[in-house]
Formats: sequence, C-alpha cells, structure tokens
Amino acid sequence: MTTINVGLLGLGTVGSGVAKIIIEEANLLTQKLGFSLKLAKVCARNLSASRAYNPPADLLTTDPMDIVGNPDIPIVVELMGGLEPARTLVLKALSSGQHVVTANKALLATHGQEIFQKALETSRELKFEAAVAGAIPIIRVLKEGLTANRIQSVFGILNGTTNHILTRMTQDGLTFQAALAEAQEFGYAEADPTNDVEGFDAAHKLTLLTALAYGSLPKVADFHVEGITKLEPEDFAAAAEFGYVIKLLAISTVDQDGRLEIRLHPTMLPKGSLMAEVNGVMNAVMVRGEASGDIFLSGAGAGMMPTASAVMGDIVETARDLRSGSAPQVPALGWRNAQTLAVKSQDDVRLAYFLRFTVIDKPGVLAAISGILGSHNISIARVVQKDHDPKRGGVVVVILTHEAREKDLLTALAEAAKLDSLTAPTRLIRVEKLV
Amino acid sequence: MTTINVGLLGLGTVGSGVAKIIIEEANLLTQKLGFSLKLAKVCARNLSASRAYNPPADLLTTDPMDIVGNPDIPIVVELMGGLEPARTLVLKALSSGQHVVTANKALLATHGQEIFQKALETSRELKFEAAVAGAIPIIRVLKEGLTANRIQSVFGILNGTTNHILTRMTQDGLTFQAALAEAQEFGYAEADPTNDVEGFDAAHKLTLLTALAYGSLPKVADFHVEGITKLEPEDFAAAAEFGYVIKLLAISTVDQDGRLEIRLHPTMLPKGSLMAEVNGVMNAVMVRGEASGDIFLSGAGAGMMPTASAVMGDIVETARDLRSGSAPQVPALGWRNAQTLAVKSQDDVRLAYFLRFTVIDKPGVLAAISGILGSHNISIARVVQKDHDPKRGGVVVVILTHEAREKDLLTALAEAAKLDSLTAPTRLIRVEKLV
Repeated sequence: MTTINVGLLGLGTVGSGVAKIIIEEANLLTQKLGFSLKLAKVCARNLSASRAYNPPADLLTTDPMDIVGNPDIPIVVELMGGLEPARTLVLKALSSGQHVVTANKALLATHGQEIFQKALETSRELKFEAAVAGAIPIIRVLKEGLTANRIQSVFGILNGTTNHILTRMTQDGLTFQAALAEAQEFGYAEADPTNDVEGFDAAHKLTLLTALAYGSLPKVADFHVEGITKLEPEDFAAAAEFGYVIKLLAISTVDQDGRLEIRLHPTMLPKGSLMAEVNGVMNAVMVRGEASGDIFLSGAGAGMMPTASAVMGDIVETARDLRSGSAPQVPALGWRNAQTLAVKSQDDVRLAYFLRFTVIDKPGVLAAISGILGSHNISIARVVQKDHDPKRGGVVVVILTHEAREKDLLTALAEAAKLDSLTAPTRLIRVEKLV
Repeated sequence: MTTINVGLLGLGTVGSGVAKIIIEEANLLTQKLGFSLKLAKVCARNLSASRAYNPPADLLTTDPMDIVGNPDIPIVVELMGGLEPARTLVLKALSSGQHVVTANKALLATHGQEIFQKALETSRELKFEAAVAGAIPIIRVLKEGLTANRIQSVFGILNGTTNHILTRMTQDGLTFQAALAEAQEFGYAEADPTNDVEGFDAAHKLTLLTALAYGSLPKVADFHVEGITKLEPEDFAAAAEFGYVIKLLAISTVDQDGRLEIRLHPTMLPKGSLMAEVNGVMNAVMVRGEASGDIFLSGAGAGMMPTASAVMGDIVETARDLRSGSAPQVPALGWRNAQTLAVKSQDDVRLAYFLRFTVIDKPGVLAAISGILGSHNISIARVVQKDHDPKRGGVVVVILTHEAREKDLLTALAEAAKLDSLTAPTRLIRVEKLV
C-alpha cells in the first residue's frame, strides 16, 4: 500500500492538531483513502515548548529546509503564520515541485498574486481551506460545488473574536472594553487585539472569498474596513428596538456595472435571519448564487481541532490527486482565467443608515437635522427620540434612513456636525440590504 | 481548447435547468475551467412537451442509447428518476466507460450497493450531489472537506414539502390536511404526496448521508421511518408551550457499541437552535465531526435551478478530472474500504418523549398514568394539564419524560391504553437530544 509523506512547517495550536489527526486517526484515514498518510517531518521553532499534542521527538526539526525541497515529501503544510519566512518557503516548495496547504490568510491576502501565479506555473496545488472560516468548508464549496453559478454575493461573519465580543455586548449589555477584556481572559482575543477588532483579519479572509467568487483578488487597502472599537452599548439597545442585531459583516458583491462592492464594517442585521443567530466564536458565510439561491454555512471559525479539520481536508484531497498522478485541475482560486474587477468606491455604495445624534433639547433641532438630510437626498424611514442621556450631555435622536448614497450621507453628517445643537459626535451604523 | 461532451438523460424540471446552465453560462464556465462543456445530446420521452427551458431541437433524441455507450460522450447525466430504466442505463454507462452524474436518490438508496460497486470496478465516477438536499453541497463536504473527521452524527431537514407543511402548521395553526392542500396548490407537493409525507423521500436521502458519514449503506426497511400525517394542531401548540418546534428530522449517529442509530420521524427541537429556524421549503444538514465540531448548512432543497446547480457542480468536477486523464481517486461514497454497521433496533433507542394523553377528568387518572410510566423506568420531567377538549372528549394531559428506552416507553403506553379513563389514542413525539 502506498504511503504519502506530509511535512509540517509550524507546530503551534493548529499544527499540533494536524499532527494529532494524522497520527491518531491513521486507521480511519487508511480505511477511507485506501492508502496511508505519514507525518514525515515537523519543523518547530522551539523543540521543547509545551504543546497540546506532541508528535514523536524524532520527527522534529528546527530547519524548514529539511522539509521544503525534500523530494521525499510531496506535501508541505505551512502553519507558521506571518509573512516571512512563510512567503519564501511556500514559493520555494512550489518551485521544488511540492504541493502546498496553508492556513495563512495574511500571507495569501498580501502576496496572493505572486503565490497563486507560482502555483499555476508549476502546476502544483495551493490549498487554503483553513484560511477562511476555520472548519467551514467554504473554499471547497465556492471552487467546486457552486462553480457553475454566477455568484451574486458572498457575505459573512469571518472573525470569531469580534463575534464573541459583539454577542456579549448584544446579550448582556457589556461595553466594548469589558467584552474585550473578557475575551482576552478566555483566550479568544490576543494581548494585542488590533488585527481582530479593527477588522483586518476578517478583511484578509474577505479578499480570498472575493477572489473565489469573482476571479478577482482585491487588496485590503482598496476597500472600506471598519472595526468594532467605537460601538457603544447604546447602539445595541437602539438596534434591538428597531429589530436589529449588530454584527461585523464581511460583504462582497458585484454591482450592475460589473464593479466589485466589497466592504467590512459593523452592520445591522434583521433579527431572526440565520446570520443574526450566529453567536459567540462561531463563523458563518452566506453565498448567493444565481442558480443555487442562498447557501448558508456556519461552524467553528477557529480553534485547534476545527482548523486542523480543514487543513486535513486539503491534505487528503491533495494526496488523493497525487495518487492518481495528475496535475491539479482546479486552480487555487477556482478560476483558470482570472479577471480584475474595479473596486467600487465606498462613496458610491447605497445603503440604509442608522444614525444616532445627541442634541440639546430645544425646539427646531430635529427640523434642522432632517432638513440637512433632506437637502442631500436622504429620506427618513424612522425616528425615535430618547430621553436625556447625561453621559452624552443631550437628548438622543435615532434616525433610520431609506437607502442613500454614502457620499451624500457623509456630506450631510459633516454639515450637521456644524450645528451648535449637537453635543456629541454622531454615530453611524450601516444597515445591510443583502441579508 | 478542449471540449468535453455531456449527455443528458431526462429533460424534466432539473434536466431543463442543467441544459440552460451549460448553454447560457458557457462563457463563465470556460473562464473558470479553461475548457468547454458541450451539451452533446439530450434524451427526452416527449420531444414536444412544453418546458421551462428548451435546448436546441437538434440535440434531442428519444433513444437513451444515443447517449449511453456513445464513445464521444464521456459524461452521462441521469435525471429521469425512477428505478427502471434508470438502473439499467446507469450500469450500462459505467460498464461502457462513461462517468455518471445522477440526482436519483430512490435509485441509489435501492440499488446503491450494485451501482457503487460497479463504479468502483470500472474506475468511473458516480456523483450524486443533487440527490440529497438540493443545492446544499453536503455530499462534497462529507466526502472531501470533513473526510479526516470521525463523524459523530449527521442530521437534518431533507424534505422541503414536509418542512413547508410543518412550517404552516407551526406558524399559522393549519391542520395537516389544509397545509397539504395548500402545498399541492403551490406546486410544493405532488398529487400523490405519499413519498414525501410518509418520510420515504427523506429516508432515501438519509441512507446516502449515512453511507458517506460511516461507510455503511443501510436499507430504508431497516430503520424507523415515520411521516407527518398524524400530527395535529394541538401538538404544535403544546410544543410551543414547552419551547419546542416540530420538524421532520432525519438522524444518523453511531452509538458507543458501534451500532448505527438511524431514524426519521417528527421531532421536537428547541426553539432558537439553527435547525429550528429552517422554514418553508428550505433544507438543512448538521454534521458533527470529532475535529470539526458542528457544521451547519442550509439552502434550497429542491427546485429547477438549485438542483441544477448541484448537478452542474458534479459535471464540472468530473470534467476537470477527465481533463487530467486520471481515474477517480475519491470513491462514490468517500470510503475506499466500506464497512457494514449493524443497525440498532428502534426499541433500544433512548430519547426523551413528549406524550399527549386525553383522559376523563376524574381523580386518580394522572396517578394511574404516572404510576404505569414509573413502573417502566420512565421518569417525568414536566406535566401540564389542559382544559377539557371537546374534540377529543376529555382533558388533555401533556407529559415530557426524561430520557428512556423506547421499548419501555411503548410497553408503558400499551399498558396505559387499557385504562378506561383514556378517551383517545395517546400521541407520542420524540424530543431530539442531538440538537
């Protein structure tokens, strides 16, 4: 019976999980595959670190070149994270004729063009199921199951840390700072949470989903990315009153002019929609295909074993292809001929908006605000005036607009900001039309 | 550029959808694949029938043998439905060296052993994504994405017709008959709805999910299949009071002794769980993997274009493999070495039960019932006594039990049925522990 060797770069949480499955589930894998996978070599920075799972010591090395370029190891699994030396090692493995499985979204979002191109040139696999939404097999679904669909939109909750924080703020009224501190205590958030709470992690994943959906890989710098740090308990209370919950949603769609509308920001979703029910560290993705209709997937977005499960799916698929002796037929992004779609400016996006003004309680203020909105073609769907808010030094007026052009809305808000009667900055949260 | 020919057996709703995608989305497919798919021949019973989409007349034939065994057509798509001649044609196509894509769950549930075996012997693809849960790519997810997982359970809502009926009964208090009549009027249910409402359609699909999850294909006759025809509006009202909704759930799991626990019946699910929120004609599947944790998928379970989307995913994947000139590496059920697990008797299943008794309102009746339950090791979690129900000629007593062995429960109910104080048959609905 054939054995296919696998080399592992990185023995952190996910790497330990992958090693554990290859070793402990060897019988199950052989029964399913009809051949064996063997963990041939594992590269770790620190050989004596304490780990959730310890592979046999004789497999360990500190030199990645024991794996990369090693002709006995056809499959290289990159789980080191970070941009370098991951980029160099992945490119070198592909050039050496090795197939690569990675979970490194930052690497692919940053150096994807170069890496995907190299995989195409060398006819080698470059698989990355674990880079987006952990255990949820969304990459495979977009590349294969829904491949004959013209994708209309893909959107989802792609970061478990922020979803946990938002869930606590929604359900228990915590402030952002308190919810973040708790998430750090539980190990759901890192000591420096910037990458999660400012939205960059989810934005990296969104670029990859976009590339799979439309064959065009945008840069994070080219679209609107807004984190959750400015959200206040009052936003959640007002959202609930309007029948919404607030989620950090990653959204990608193509407009009627063929422009990519891609954005990541806190979003109001109607209660009772499946996406609004995704709580805690769970992730979820909705794909809207022209033929398929809406396909919704949810599951664990992170964690040792769920992420290892996704990595293993890629390893197994690559090993099965290797057994058949064929070059990969499905390109890394699912598109043999990529395209480059122009990214629509956020100014041109049309959405409904939730606005929270804090004003001095005197006659004419609401008239002034609604007058400014109206003069910029923004019509009002609902208004609720609240009691005096001592913290913000005024009366709170919550306005839900009809759909408007974002540029018009921002211009109107800038004009309203000059009113003497506003006592605090106005809060803006977008309301999602796709959900 | 290569062109790969596809032959279509059957031009009903789904067949028309597949023809439409191959023809109308030719550019998109070529861009993604780097080669072309061509609809080479379409076999229809009636060449002049009116259809949602009409492929060019010169592609049509009434002779399936223009496709099956034709060396110019490597991919045969069977969308005729029914057992014969579908079985014979599929076997003949495989023997002729053709790859087969089918959406025919009844065929695979009935003749799967023979057909899967033939595919293995001939090293040909036998793909059937569209046979289970329509557009939801659950087959691919089980065979590939979650392949390194020891699957703990798989369960879901696999029939849109019954889910639509149950949704109307839940949300609007309709009787089964009224909800069925409405579903027939909307075209969601057939004139003879037996196959759907008695659970057979979902049971066929469940056998296929079970085979993918555990490598063992059970027969529908070997497990408990119970439809929705006996459910009454009072069941839904009582369920709501206890915090449950009623769904027709297909369930498959492996117990600690390695026996297959497989069953299909109306089930109480806690409100607020994702599965309980799947309404109307939508389908959903939850897969619980040892590493992956819970993965939930939902989407359209039927319909022309959603089902065609799933068929197209299979066609494209087969065509990509063909381009690489390789024999299929992933067996039809995802297991190179199948196994046969014993099916656990329904008598041995342990669940909580919802019981609805109708009794004469006199002292001692509740004591008699609870005494009988207690003597069979069934303990009571909750009791609610209702007002007199003139329709059923007595007072309604609803009991929710703790987990008990089904055999004990049925014995107790048989004993209770002999009580003079029962004025109507006792209703039993299982409460799902897995959700």
